[in-house]
Amino acid sequence: MDKENIEKSENKCELQKILDIIGGKWSMSIIYALISDKKRFKELERMIPGISTRMLVKELKNMEENGIVTRTAFATVPPTVEYNLTPKGRKLEPIINELYKWGLEHIN
Amino acid sequence: MDKENIEKSENKCELQKILDIIGGKWSMSIIYALISDKKRFKELERMIPGISTRMLVKELKNMEENGIVTRTAFATVPPTVEYNLTPKGRKLEPIINELYKWGLEHIN
Repeated sequence: MDKENIEKSENKCELQKILDIIGGKWSMSIIYALISDKKRFKELERMIPGISTRMLVKELKNMEENGIVTRTAFATVPPTVEYNLTPKGRKLEPIINELYKWGLEHIN
Repeated sequence: MDKENIEKSENKCELQKILDIIGGKWSMSIIYALISDKKRFKELERMIPGISTRMLVKELKNMEENGIVTRTAFATVPPTVEYNLTPKGRKLEPIINELYKWGLEHIN
């Protein structure tokens, strides 16, 4: 393997790490839903058609662990939980917007 | 639902359509591997650690159907198949590069 290929291969693993964090079927949709403002769990669920409650819980937990979103619980009755983007998560906004523009131009 | 929310919701579905096409665990890695040049199936397999042959076949078929890659078969012995990005697929290059930069800055 020459130098260029080694670099490629390392980049590859890096990209794989990135995609493990934000390349899931739902994580970009969740980020997109949070771009305008923080949201309650129920609001997110309504904004993302097709996601199951279980999957939304799982994805949000994963994104919280990876520092993409914050989770704030309020001791209301019933309890409410709010999710917001961290500055790190918010930096994905232009990328998601570009992806969206690409889709508008190229998908049906 | 007010106008802004209806728009959000439509954007949401659009984004979901886009992510169905390129948001899979592997499709961005495949695009990344094809950015520098066309590749044979075996080369792609080597460049993407962790992908199974079956999954690579499936993803490439999906991407071919969606006009992201072209597939060219050569009647050699043994037969070889080459994959390349279409112009539409190549337009994803800056987005993937941005994603990669984000990752370098924000992951470990």
